[in-house]
Amino acid sequence: MGRVTARRSVVRIRDGEVSRRPDTLAAEEPMEIRVDGRPLTVTMRTPGDDFDLAVGFLVSEGVVHATEDVVTARYCAGATEEGLNTYNVVDVQLAPGMPAPDASLERNFYTTSSCGVCGKSSLDAVRTASAWSVADDPLRVDPAVLVALPDRLRAAQEVFDRTGGLHAAGLFSSAGELLVLREDVGRHNAVDKVVGHAAREGLLPLRDTVLVVSGRASFELVQKAVMAGIPMLAAVSAPSSLAAELAEESGLTLVGFLRGTTMNVYAGAERLEAPACR
Amino acid sequence: MGRVTARRSVVRIRDGEVSRRPDTLAAEEPMEIRVDGRPLTVTMRTPGDDFDLAVGFLVSEGVVHATEDVVTARYCAGATEEGLNTYNVVDVQLAPGMPAPDASLERNFYTTSSCGVCGKSSLDAVRTASAWSVADDPLRVDPAVLVALPDRLRAAQEVFDRTGGLHAAGLFSSAGELLVLREDVGRHNAVDKVVGHAAREGLLPLRDTVLVVSGRASFELVQKAVMAGIPMLAAVSAPSSLAAELAEESGLTLVGFLRGTTMNVYAGAERLEAPACR
Repeated sequence: MGRVTARRSVVRIRDGEVSRRPDTLAAEEPMEIRVDGRPLTVTMRTPGDDFDLAVGFLVSEGVVHATEDVVTARYCAGATEEGLNTYNVVDVQLAPGMPAPDASLERNFYTTSSCGVCGKSSLDAVRTASAWSVADDPLRVDPAVLVALPDRLRAAQEVFDRTGGLHAAGLFSSAGELLVLREDVGRHNAVDKVVGHAAREGLLPLRDTVLVVSGRASFELVQKAVMAGIPMLAAVSAPSSLAAELAEESGLTLVGFLRGTTMNVYAGAERLEAPACR
Repeated sequence: MGRVTARRSVVRIRDGEVSRRPDTLAAEEPMEIRVDGRPLTVTMRTPGDDFDLAVGFLVSEGVVHATEDVVTARYCAGATEEGLNTYNVVDVQLAPGMPAPDASLERNFYTTSSCGVCGKSSLDAVRTASAWSVADDPLRVDPAVLVALPDRLRAAQEVFDRTGGLHAAGLFSSAGELLVLREDVGRHNAVDKVVGHAAREGLLPLRDTVLVVSGRASFELVQKAVMAGIPMLAAVSAPSSLAAELAEESGLTLVGFLRGTTMNVYAGAERLEAPACR
């Protein structure tokens, strides 16, 4: 886990004054995900929780739905020509009889997930692919509990304060208890790591939970939440238009600009137990 | 251009007080990039400057190096089964005799760009692929000029203040003049749009310029700067470890945490004309 950060000497310029000092950076390295030995994709990620990342990615893409779908995840030895283990190649072995990711998926994940290249088709594709619905999830969260979560996420972040370079994703219970926290240079990876952890622990679908992310909420993050059965996504920053549309169509509660004592609710406001939302 | 933002009714909760009000969101829609009619990739982007995005992406990937490499970029009519033009599919026609993107590129861009799945190999791949070197670029920038650029970028941003959801990338002259600004929900897209604009205007390689980005600096952004011949990348937030390594190996000047009157220089400090850096 020493590779989560990297030390580097930097030149600091302040008001024209120049000094040299050591700095801590968030580590970023490529990781290849293989399924049953076949290369599927490569993501730029912060090393650490790599098996969670690999399994979570497969959940997000609809390949894995339950703990028993995965036999094992391991680093490939001999990934380089010299036969070295770089700890940057993870092979996920699926349970016997599980279908391999299909060719179109392998060729281009985005083509599949956005399927037909218009917003409407994308939403259709996600609804079809998800193994469970979040629309009927009975989750209710007190707004006073929700506003406390970003600070709780920040307090639990191990690396952020040292580098300023990592996104965080935290899964919370409806009572505001932090269940799992993951960090990464890529916000999608942080979410995949959370989902993969849950999948490996046998916790899917993640009913009655709230996923809090440190940055913005894109279409992709809403998609990942839905695929994991998470009924509420709350972001510290802004959501995109397609994130809000997918949330509404999927029955996911989407909260943005969760800061201080305020929040904007873009879809599914009935899950927030403030009087006028009931 | 009406699709750059989307209006939406949101529930606002402040200290438990609930109200409903309209909100402006950054638009996010998938865009498919085709080369000579063949689908190459799909990116989630904010509509607008789509031809710049498509051409810039091809520059970043080493497919296009000069204006004359591209005959035309256009929206595909008949992209849907109903024959409608969604304005979400862009076809780039390459000049006769230009090699098509190779099969491995088409299958998985990341596999190509990270090539061998360890940091070292990635760096090698980028050095090989770039049509020009930024290492010998004579650019010099006064730190007092550089610290003013984030505010100038922010002032020029058309959409950010309304949505809070867009990344910005701005290309500046060494004297601090804004040459071109682009915004997108994806930071990599904002940079591709800047590069694509320059490519279409015949300005590659972008010698003697500074690229300023509103967020963090990843490996991918450094890679895009190098591929466009930009000798300096300055980010308002943190760089990753691999971004700093690639910058150093490529001879690109990488500045992070460019805020107020301070900055950290992670590579190529000799281009900042402060006394101790000369």
